[in-house]
Amino acid sequence: MTSIEPKTLKGFRDYLPKEQLARQTIFAAIQKWFELYGFAPLSTPALEYKEILMKKYGEDEKLLYSFTDNGGREVAMRYDLTVPLARFIAENQNTLTYPFKRYQIAPVWRADKPQKGRFREFYQCDIDTVGTDSFVADAEVVACVGKILAELGVTDYEFRINDRRIFTGLVSVLGLAEEQMVLVIRAIDKVKKIGVESVISSLKEQGIPGGALDKIKMYLSLGEGAGALDGIVKTLGTDFQTVIDRVKELIVSLQAMGVPAGNIVFDPSIARGLDYYTGMVVETTLKNNPEYGSIASGGRYDNLVDEFLGQSIPAVGISIGIDRLFEVLSERGLLPEAALAEVLVLNQDAALQADYISLVTQLRDGGIKAELYYEATKFDKQFKYAESKGARWAVIMGEVEKASGKVQVKNLQSREQQEVVISELVTFLKK
Amino acid sequence: MTSIEPKTLKGFRDYLPKEQLARQTIFAAIQKWFELYGFAPLSTPALEYKEILMKKYGEDEKLLYSFTDNGGREVAMRYDLTVPLARFIAENQNTLTYPFKRYQIAPVWRADKPQKGRFREFYQCDIDTVGTDSFVADAEVVACVGKILAELGVTDYEFRINDRRIFTGLVSVLGLAEEQMVLVIRAIDKVKKIGVESVISSLKEQGIPGGALDKIKMYLSLGEGAGALDGIVKTLGTDFQTVIDRVKELIVSLQAMGVPAGNIVFDPSIARGLDYYTGMVVETTLKNNPEYGSIASGGRYDNLVDEFLGQSIPAVGISIGIDRLFEVLSERGLLPEAALAEVLVLNQDAALQADYISLVTQLRDGGIKAELYYEATKFDKQFKYAESKGARWAVIMGEVEKASGKVQVKNLQSREQQEVVISELVTFLKK
Repeated sequence: MTSIEPKTLKGFRDYLPKEQLARQTIFAAIQKWFELYGFAPLSTPALEYKEILMKKYGEDEKLLYSFTDNGGREVAMRYDLTVPLARFIAENQNTLTYPFKRYQIAPVWRADKPQKGRFREFYQCDIDTVGTDSFVADAEVVACVGKILAELGVTDYEFRINDRRIFTGLVSVLGLAEEQMVLVIRAIDKVKKIGVESVISSLKEQGIPGGALDKIKMYLSLGEGAGALDGIVKTLGTDFQTVIDRVKELIVSLQAMGVPAGNIVFDPSIARGLDYYTGMVVETTLKNNPEYGSIASGGRYDNLVDEFLGQSIPAVGISIGIDRLFEVLSERGLLPEAALAEVLVLNQDAALQADYISLVTQLRDGGIKAELYYEATKFDKQFKYAESKGARWAVIMGEVEKASGKVQVKNLQSREQQEVVISELVTFLKK
Repeated sequence: MTSIEPKTLKGFRDYLPKEQLARQTIFAAIQKWFELYGFAPLSTPALEYKEILMKKYGEDEKLLYSFTDNGGREVAMRYDLTVPLARFIAENQNTLTYPFKRYQIAPVWRADKPQKGRFREFYQCDIDTVGTDSFVADAEVVACVGKILAELGVTDYEFRINDRRIFTGLVSVLGLAEEQMVLVIRAIDKVKKIGVESVISSLKEQGIPGGALDKIKMYLSLGEGAGALDGIVKTLGTDFQTVIDRVKELIVSLQAMGVPAGNIVFDPSIARGLDYYTGMVVETTLKNNPEYGSIASGGRYDNLVDEFLGQSIPAVGISIGIDRLFEVLSERGLLPEAALAEVLVLNQDAALQADYISLVTQLRDGGIKAELYYEATKFDKQFKYAESKGARWAVIMGEVEKASGKVQVKNLQSREQQEVVISELVTFLKK
């Protein structure tokens, strides 16, 4: 038999039990708030027709995992949860009730260059509201993320908000062609990484004229917050009043939803690289750990179903990146901890196997994560097993205990041991 | 812009909110019992090196979704959760504590012929115990499924149990070569579908000699249950005593774990098609709906990591097919029902938008799935929306109510309406 090396693919990884249990607890918190906010689960397939996913992701399209299936179809693994949603909406547009609010928590695949903390398979947690252009819908998706972060103990989040219509207006004021807008947006999107000067010189190289560059520089020098919000109308003109008012309404709504004013910032440099955004855009950074970048991003995209339907349906959504969030929680000691098993029933006498089985069954039926060590072997080995599972208790029963209807219960932390009547074991351990 | 037809791939499907919510409730029940039985979550990637998955699935290997990735690697989407587990164990063998008990609930992909209720993407819910050959471990994986089915209201399940070592012994008694064992096992696996005579004639065609065929026929005519169990030693000889004793121990353990005796059947015709089983094998049928086939199947496979490690590690596992289970629950009216939202705050006056937002935020923070209708539009439309979400309550507030600090709460089933003080709203609705 030839030997095959057991290994995961480059850029992919396993999540071991302790980490995966913590991840699942985070998913559960996310799911809880998604549902409290009226979002309902939708599950779409991992594979889509490739043409559905084409021309959606700009230069990142090359990261798609695509192939020809056994039936000769061109297919691709999903790159995000938004485009499959658009496909779903277009396919079912006449049977849905609007606004349609859905969440999806699922893996996506991108053949990206693997780097620290970035994998080719990762989970996205998305909420989207389709069929309304209300700013309340914009505020909801953002506020819902705030609730999740607060529940997980992260309170220094900062929603950095902008509106893509400011860019549309800007490009129009600058007298640029529509194709040039994409260049401007992509360049501005990089300002946090490369600085204002580099953005300007990059745009210059791409043929943006000097007069426009001056205004872009002025725009990027407005700073952030309320001053920048008012500065836009002052520097760029009253054509921007409508979109600025909309941003203000959003901010007021966010506060009414319980997001503290100090956690919301208007940031004119936020652009979001993806081509499909049309209105509000948002990134979520951490005041104390800005190096993580955005841990939840999204925005309004009113034209995504166009290509399928030939008509627009307004939509807004946000996506939480669980991997970055996990890293933050881990670094801050905020990871939810749970034992893989709470109790180990020790096996000291093969003749009592049936009794041990009854005992462990009683515990499990009573709602306690319990294990029975399968073989009557040295206690050392069994205690080591209990430790590996994070178990807090060991239950010990020999012939003597069995005869008396009692067991010894050992607290594996304090090493204290006490006798408990078998019929009261569940109650005792649940205390 | 060219129009792209929005559609799911052949053999794939979306799960809409109501169905997906029910599925998630089923997953939660499964996960709860998996964890109570001491299994911990492991997450492996959707893609593996193709060679890892080759030569594991017999004639079904052609159903693998495989392709060459952008980096020139031969990769395949996972076909089941068992082979990735074997790869994981081999890769991490020295850092794990045994027995290693893990669960995984995840989609798998098979390019199978789509047919009613069978899709190319479907979820498997697996538990496996690695590193022990104890019959208690065999019993646990089976009993755990019994708990799940009982919790979901399915009590007519029947664990149909056999042991692959009976086949090994049979082939040896028949004097057949090892290659012929695979033929015999695959043929016997089909006896429920095609009958004893067809199995025999198929084996005859494949060159199994007449003397052996007589014994196989005798074996398949033993029937099932305790009589068949004793019949094996009587007809085939005392060489079979050890494996028969093991099956009996398993059955006793299952009963000690609370599985009623009437739900366990020894069935010598159960073979399980997959090549990797080596000991106990089990299928789970329903007394009242045998047409569904097995809704949970598995067995002991002691050699699966061999190919990676050059040494054996004993293992046993079972897999629940969520799609069949869902169908059963649906047909029996046992699907868990949950509202997508419990309360709709009606929007009757755009001037009160901020108050409505506060109201809906108060409900959500109080743990109630609540929605605010975004626009102040006709109540008819808003009630229709509430209905589509399965909401039980509508909360109504105009200027008058606001001034008095009260709202009208309407029960959407009984149509009764009553006044509730705003600060007591959560308490009222949670009753």
